[in-house]
Amino acid sequence: MGKKKVAILGATGYTALEVVEILLRHPGAEIIAATSRNEAPTTLSDLHPRLNGRICLRTESFDAEVLKSKGVEFAFSCLPHGASATSVAALLEKGIRVIDLSADYRLRDPARQLRWYGHPHADPGNLPLAVYGLPEFHTQGIKNARLVANPGCYPQTVILGMAPLVRRKALQIGTIIADCKSGVSGAGRTPSLKTHFPECNESVSAYQVGVHRHTAEMEQELGVLAGEDMPVLFLPHLIPMERGILSTITATLEPGSNGMGNSDLLDLFRTEYSGSPFVRVCATPPSTSQTRHTNFIDLHPMRVGDRVVVIASLDNLIRGASGVAVQNFNLMNDWPETLGLLP
Amino acid sequence: MGKKKVAILGATGYTALEVVEILLRHPGAEIIAATSRNEAPTTLSDLHPRLNGRICLRTESFDAEVLKSKGVEFAFSCLPHGASATSVAALLEKGIRVIDLSADYRLRDPARQLRWYGHPHADPGNLPLAVYGLPEFHTQGIKNARLVANPGCYPQTVILGMAPLVRRKALQIGTIIADCKSGVSGAGRTPSLKTHFPECNESVSAYQVGVHRHTAEMEQELGVLAGEDMPVLFLPHLIPMERGILSTITATLEPGSNGMGNSDLLDLFRTEYSGSPFVRVCATPPSTSQTRHTNFIDLHPMRVGDRVVVIASLDNLIRGASGVAVQNFNLMNDWPETLGLLP
Amino acid sequence: MGKKKVAILGATGYTALEVVEILLRHPGAEIIAATSRNEAPTTLSDLHPRLNGRICLRTESFDAEVLKSKGVEFAFSCLPHGASATSVAALLEKGIRVIDLSADYRLRDPARQLRWYGHPHADPGNLPLAVYGLPEFHTQGIKNARLVANPGCYPQTVILGMAPLVRRKALQIGTIIADCKSGVSGAGRTPSLKTHFPECNESVSAYQVGVHRHTAEMEQELGVLAGEDMPVLFLPHLIPMERGILSTITATLEPGSNGMGNSDLLDLFRTEYSGSPFVRVCATPPSTSQTRHTNFIDLHPMRVGDRVVVIASLDNLIRGASGVAVQNFNLMNDWPETLGLLP
Amino acid sequence: MGKKKVAILGATGYTALEVVEILLRHPGAEIIAATSRNEAPTTLSDLHPRLNGRICLRTESFDAEVLKSKGVEFAFSCLPHGASATSVAALLEKGIRVIDLSADYRLRDPARQLRWYGHPHADPGNLPLAVYGLPEFHTQGIKNARLVANPGCYPQTVILGMAPLVRRKALQIGTIIADCKSGVSGAGRTPSLKTHFPECNESVSAYQVGVHRHTAEMEQELGVLAGEDMPVLFLPHLIPMERGILSTITATLEPGSNGMGNSDLLDLFRTEYSGSPFVRVCATPPSTSQTRHTNFIDLHPMRVGDRVVVIASLDNLIRGASGVAVQNFNLMNDWPETLGLLP
Repeated sequence: MGKKKVAILGATGYTALEVVEILLRHPGAEIIAATSRNEAPTTLSDLHPRLNGRICLRTESFDAEVLKSKGVEFAFSCLPHGASATSVAALLEKGIRVIDLSADYRLRDPARQLRWYGHPHADPGNLPLAVYGLPEFHTQGIKNARLVANPGCYPQTVILGMAPLVRRKALQIGTIIADCKSGVSGAGRTPSLKTHFPECNESVSAYQVGVHRHTAEMEQELGVLAGEDMPVLFLPHLIPMERGILSTITATLEPGSNGMGNSDLLDLFRTEYSGSPFVRVCATPPSTSQTRHTNFIDLHPMRVGDRVVVIASLDNLIRGASGVAVQNFNLMNDWPETLGLLP
Repeated sequence: MGKKKVAILGATGYTALEVVEILLRHPGAEIIAATSRNEAPTTLSDLHPRLNGRICLRTESFDAEVLKSKGVEFAFSCLPHGASATSVAALLEKGIRVIDLSADYRLRDPARQLRWYGHPHADPGNLPLAVYGLPEFHTQGIKNARLVANPGCYPQTVILGMAPLVRRKALQIGTIIADCKSGVSGAGRTPSLKTHFPECNESVSAYQVGVHRHTAEMEQELGVLAGEDMPVLFLPHLIPMERGILSTITATLEPGSNGMGNSDLLDLFRTEYSGSPFVRVCATPPSTSQTRHTNFIDLHPMRVGDRVVVIASLDNLIRGASGVAVQNFNLMNDWPETLGLLP
Repeated sequence: MGKKKVAILGATGYTALEVVEILLRHPGAEIIAATSRNEAPTTLSDLHPRLNGRICLRTESFDAEVLKSKGVEFAFSCLPHGASATSVAALLEKGIRVIDLSADYRLRDPARQLRWYGHPHADPGNLPLAVYGLPEFHTQGIKNARLVANPGCYPQTVILGMAPLVRRKALQIGTIIADCKSGVSGAGRTPSLKTHFPECNESVSAYQVGVHRHTAEMEQELGVLAGEDMPVLFLPHLIPMERGILSTITATLEPGSNGMGNSDLLDLFRTEYSGSPFVRVCATPPSTSQTRHTNFIDLHPMRVGDRVVVIASLDNLIRGASGVAVQNFNLMNDWPETLGLLP
Repeated sequence: MGKKKVAILGATGYTALEVVEILLRHPGAEIIAATSRNEAPTTLSDLHPRLNGRICLRTESFDAEVLKSKGVEFAFSCLPHGASATSVAALLEKGIRVIDLSADYRLRDPARQLRWYGHPHADPGNLPLAVYGLPEFHTQGIKNARLVANPGCYPQTVILGMAPLVRRKALQIGTIIADCKSGVSGAGRTPSLKTHFPECNESVSAYQVGVHRHTAEMEQELGVLAGEDMPVLFLPHLIPMERGILSTITATLEPGSNGMGNSDLLDLFRTEYSGSPFVRVCATPPSTSQTRHTNFIDLHPMRVGDRVVVIASLDNLIRGASGVAVQNFNLMNDWPETLGLLP
């Protein structure tokens, strides 16, 4: 297998670190460039002491021309939302294929983008190119994509957790509520009072109730699966742990699906994901510790009264960002989905 | 103010420790006895090193006769569910007033008790005496009670969080969902694999989904307020922190209440709790850190679509158990509710 | 007891919050002013949501004249090192007594100050007024002081932990090593990468090895007790917890003290601190949890080979800062040391 | 490369889980058996939900004959101290090579074993076979060993941290003090009050001061390197984190080594470990987060006064136990030390 030449954009943050760590043991990638918006160039291991002695690479300013001239074939953009699109556009123009970990290309409808993000899209011309990078549902699209919009961490739990039911039209519309609990690394690496250790340790809090932008992503993808609007009430929470998301998702069953019991639900989910190596359907509710540092998403569906409750667990930095990005990278190269990703 | 002579039953656990710490700075209580079911008598400070040099008391086996002869007037039972009722019955017979922190007397209907707890009640004769110890709603009953059934930690968040709406009949029946997140001290002081540090640190998990016994308590009290059945879907979660509960409670508004906006909700809640010194209605979502080590319960109601979302925060060991027990003790003595409890 | 009118300087930080919480239940203090260097005035409860409904006070810019005209008699300065001295000087000029929680007046020798802090003292004229506020050793001086230099958190563990031995000249000079472990609140409330939750959770690290400024404070006070230089090797560490310090202090015994066994050490420490209500000499090594949220410092001395090992535990925000500040406030008013401070 | 058939003994604990996870991605191992002393056979993934869908293996009772008949060539014993030796003896008799993660064969001198462990050795006959499994110093011995005594977590930090100085006779004898901080997983997976989350979260404590059994291991290995007795004062501490050890080791320099500065120390350490892929000599003090989930041990030496201070960091479950066990397994097969171990 020839190694693909890879660049990492936005090398300072946590998702960049995770992409680097995964690719260092991946047989098909060679990291040849890392860019950072900070003025002073530095080394990856100065940014991330974990990388000491494992990779020797200086960061550089972003310049698509330079990256092209170095032979870069794939770029992982770990830039923040809003900042990513300009760089992505420049890379696409040079023929470099891009996996964009930001939210910039996730919403297909510019109007929806404007409504949830509050500003017009910086690169609307490339929106039609973008494939939403949920490997379980867009496999073929991802394989051929020049630009993959890597999915959000929260949305994956809700989309994969509700999909088997939504596709079957088993749920009453408007009843999906997703109460999601995330570790603090989900907030990124920029310090703030909210993520200051003495503030968030030994504390749990709700934030952006009803207005979090990931709502749009959940609704878009579930809507596609359903063939009609699928509103979601999304309730994100900050938990005093470094990493991990646990989502507890409830919805009311349609009367016609009222016969489904716990074992029917398990069967339904197991059938749906039988070909998906990273989705594990569990017989008992998963904890986040069992998916930590892996690319698995664990799902446990159950019946309570006239509702279904799905518990979903993943590692927000791996399956929620960098792991699924490499899964997409594998698909784009027609390699096995699991290459370099089995824990 | 004469000091009441007080006994603590079940001195080994966390709620006993908290009762002792609160009463040590309370002007109206003198702790004269502490019982423990462990064979070997020991001292309170050997059980709880925090109490070193602050109280000098040896534990003893429970004997209602002995406690009576020592002049005990009030007992706080910190015994576990199931074990408490027999001791409570013996104390009541001696004329000692009891605040029972276990669940043994919380459910008024023995059939409901049997259904949720799986065994017949050990002391059905005293059930009619018991007053549910939620001071905000049963003030007069508590004042005169010989036996107070101290309320559960989770139920308080849901009952106080939904009461203003339930009393007003503003909610569609069957739509209340309470997603609750608790620190690990809620599981008590007996070690288990589930509460072993390396298992639950950096992990969040759901447990007893749809079958947790506190459901019965929530439904009983909300049912009384509503004058009709009020089913609740209760989703408890274990969070990697020592103490604190955050409950995120959603319900669908009745069409007739559809006009209520955020400020109407705040007004409604502020009016409801204007006379309740320990209920704080907050303009922004509370974190558990802001109620930690206090007897406050913080509530933030908001409107999202056709639903109301209430975020409730309390300290499970103080307001959820030992603090509200002392609040009840104050009421039983006709003292100010806040005596010895302001942080 | 008449209530003293009190001002809090630097109201934004953690030590200010703790001073406020302690004084709210203190019978001898009325907080009438709180200053902050932030431009926009705000309320204490907006800065610290824990204070919701407990105190209603707007912050103001510092102006000694204004504070004097309001009748302020005592000020607690919670300003950072360097920034405190100018405000303190202005307060002293107005006749307001000050407890300064910063390090600005702790070192009596301006040369030592310059060497460890790197800049000349901003208010050298008032240095001779300052009394080092360790209540166990400077009781009389504190009672009469116009300015108390509140002691550092780490130094208290080392000074109180070594004092009984140093005073007895039982230790070989140059052998004291203090390996100290502190919770993250010791770093203050200003966010930084080092205190960003995902960086410091699940991680322990050493910092400022051999160059931490608290060394000077330890050496100064132990030197006074010894009557000669007492160098200390101070090794501070950051621990993933909100609050608490555990210091493990070792030193080699003088041959003449070689006969001291564990019980002799316990006796020596108990005699030394028999009149100190907040120093608890423990028969077993203390954990930080047993002093958390209290003003106690727990000490356990033991003999290992030719060395003595002392384990010391305190709450860095209470006994390490705000609690001992109120203890000093009590002494300055000739009140019982423990007033408002017993947990 | 042919895959070696491997058995795991004592499959319930954390080190067994880590061995399994490492070997699952190792090209040279096939796990064909897992034993457990629990009566009821179960599956590895029921014991460890992380293993769901990754390995399908039922646990069995230990029987050396059965393991031999299955073709087991290597066994990793994750049994606790004391229980391991009997099984190891039976395996050796069958010609199965063993990596023993317990302490049972670490001390070469049965008298030392008796003194520190309090009981005679269960298998003294095989003690001479055992090679102390510190790959950096016993490479050749490990390659040929039938039995490797895998080194303890704490001792590795102290031995590797002091070795370059001890070999050079640069330290005054009797001056080594190792203040070590460990995450809670070091205490194993059996629940106890000490490891109960609400007890050890937000708390740090010292334990077994001066009497911890790892002292013997440190002293034995440093003594061999020095050619004379090398006493160590070992001060272990429990830290509220899942995994990681940070050791802060101090010692007084011999007058003849007094010329060594910080850069000399760095040079000395870099030269010493230039051929050791898992020892990283760092220019700044390491945190435990930078070695977490890796087999690296990071060392930072520095000069403070007449002392040297070495900060050492490793992951107690990987480099401290299961990772170094696989490193030894690699050596025993003459494979590259890093096979399957690079993060």
